[in-house]
Amino acid sequence: MIQIQPLYFVDNKVLIIDQTLLPAQNLQIEIDTIEKMWEAIKKLRIRGAPAIGIAAAYGLWLGMKTETFSNNDAWKQRFQYCCDYLKTSRPTAVNLFWAIDRVAALVQKIEDQPVDQVIHAILDEAHLIHQQDIETCRKIGEFGAKLITENDVVLTHCNAGALATGAYGTALSAFYCAHEQGKKFSVFADETRPLLQGARLTAWELQQAGVDVTLISDNMAAHTIRAKKITKIIIGADRIAANGDAANKIGSYGLGVLAKYHNIPLYIAAPLSTFDFNTPSGKEIPIEERDAEELRFFCGAQSAPLQIQTYNPAFDVVDASLIKAFITPFGLFKPEEIAKLQSF
Amino acid sequence: MIQIQPLYFVDNKVLIIDQTLLPAQNLQIEIDTIEKMWEAIKKLRIRGAPAIGIAAAYGLWLGMKTETFSNNDAWKQRFQYCCDYLKTSRPTAVNLFWAIDRVAALVQKIEDQPVDQVIHAILDEAHLIHQQDIETCRKIGEFGAKLITENDVVLTHCNAGALATGAYGTALSAFYCAHEQGKKFSVFADETRPLLQGARLTAWELQQAGVDVTLISDNMAAHTIRAKKITKIIIGADRIAANGDAANKIGSYGLGVLAKYHNIPLYIAAPLSTFDFNTPSGKEIPIEERDAEELRFFCGAQSAPLQIQTYNPAFDVVDASLIKAFITPFGLFKPEEIAKLQSF
Repeated sequence: MIQIQPLYFVDNKVLIIDQTLLPAQNLQIEIDTIEKMWEAIKKLRIRGAPAIGIAAAYGLWLGMKTETFSNNDAWKQRFQYCCDYLKTSRPTAVNLFWAIDRVAALVQKIEDQPVDQVIHAILDEAHLIHQQDIETCRKIGEFGAKLITENDVVLTHCNAGALATGAYGTALSAFYCAHEQGKKFSVFADETRPLLQGARLTAWELQQAGVDVTLISDNMAAHTIRAKKITKIIIGADRIAANGDAANKIGSYGLGVLAKYHNIPLYIAAPLSTFDFNTPSGKEIPIEERDAEELRFFCGAQSAPLQIQTYNPAFDVVDASLIKAFITPFGLFKPEEIAKLQSF
Repeated sequence: MIQIQPLYFVDNKVLIIDQTLLPAQNLQIEIDTIEKMWEAIKKLRIRGAPAIGIAAAYGLWLGMKTETFSNNDAWKQRFQYCCDYLKTSRPTAVNLFWAIDRVAALVQKIEDQPVDQVIHAILDEAHLIHQQDIETCRKIGEFGAKLITENDVVLTHCNAGALATGAYGTALSAFYCAHEQGKKFSVFADETRPLLQGARLTAWELQQAGVDVTLISDNMAAHTIRAKKITKIIIGADRIAANGDAANKIGSYGLGVLAKYHNIPLYIAAPLSTFDFNTPSGKEIPIEERDAEELRFFCGAQSAPLQIQTYNPAFDVVDASLIKAFITPFGLFKPEEIAKLQSF
């Protein structure tokens, strides 16, 4: 199976899929400077929390390898500049800061070594961040695939996919692993307004991988659950509170309610980094509200009155009571069991 | 209050709002031939079951008044041609056939009269169909407005509005009447993918009338119910079965489930013609599936992979158990009470 990755390291080159062109065009572009990586993150050519972290680590390497340094102070100054600069690309992306700080901590440990070795170590660390994320996603997928039985009809939402991670994704990793295992099942993908990550990205990457995927609009979910006999719902998460409430792309809460009403399980796939045990419940998770233009326009076409009031929350919170279990790299955990994850 | 109508008869002229241009442009176009009316219905410049019926009646008048006739056979032949021709404009629209057959029945009764009088009678009948629809909608609105209390926050879906009827609409008529009465309340409107009737039409007409309306995407409904404390949901219907199951625009069933989960009432506003006592339950209502291109493109912009499989049901069925009551021109009726409507 050809495994889609948002970023490839081939022949000493960093290539990314320009996700702003999907699904009309699947174009890999070479990123050979830190400025190009900054722009790619800023313009969402690469997006998804884990993928942004990986991109930032490679970005630091690019920022260093393109320079020559007269002395130690010069490269340290340059490295600090690279860290600060990349952090401005998407200042709300937690994984961006996490990855840059991880590389910076390593660099600090080896700052007495020759700069060539430091630069090499930065690249190795970028590879490691990438590889570890792929392994995490793979483990999530292997546990998720166990839930998928022959002739399952699974609903998903937004893009918790390969394009958002090192590879495989979280929710979609379950589909890739089950597909590898030769299981016969089908997936319905919500298009996920307003930014259509389901239609543009999830539908595309599942189709590329040969998974049987059917696109619906978000408001078709309830009817589809009944008419097409959906057996389970699997989605990702952006942040999971200590009590098991899970924030995810807007529309997820409604799917939780539909799952409960139709007596089908809702699973949430996520790596450990998504669990936030310092947040007691979903009530404490702030909900980002986005620009009205996302609802007034669609791909440049006006779809609503220009001055119309809008409410555009980017996320909502699925109550723990609506979640059957979390699919993690360490197995399945019911909402009331997630405290155990703190020991991993 | 300026009352929006999809069709106006002014100075012996038929004017319609070209709804394909909304909300970017509010343009009234004169329809002075039956061919232009056929095209307007075909191209959805005028849409909505009651509005199509009204348009067809005026279309018959236009088809007759632009001609001169040498004898009785000539005008009868022409009239038959006009009826047959208009019926081809949107062959699945029940109200189109109903209105044409109603005018044809009248013409048959007076076919011995001079042709000028017959043509005049056709115009009078068109006016009557128009006026009766406005009165029906007004009565629905008056009963609906009684449900709207001070500071209510009401959710609606699709366009059960003035633009779909003679005036006022069905669900939206409740808002217009409550607004006239000076009640303070606000409305959230689902954008209603794939054809965005909520964003393009409902948001526009409520905004024009000065009703406090906020646009959301369909998948925001669940979160909005909780975050914005929605107090009730009011929508229209396309067909209501004898047991109270109601078919309406895709997404309505999901709203029914959300209403039940959040313990808020869902009301369905509809004229008598929407009740179909020959259909025992929602199971017998066929669900139209529409073209994949509606999900793959929007206003010419590609929003999904070109070859992606889609499922595009235009309607779904809200179970009677999820409906608090029907708002009709004769008052409120619970699903188990609708048999009484057969006596009106």
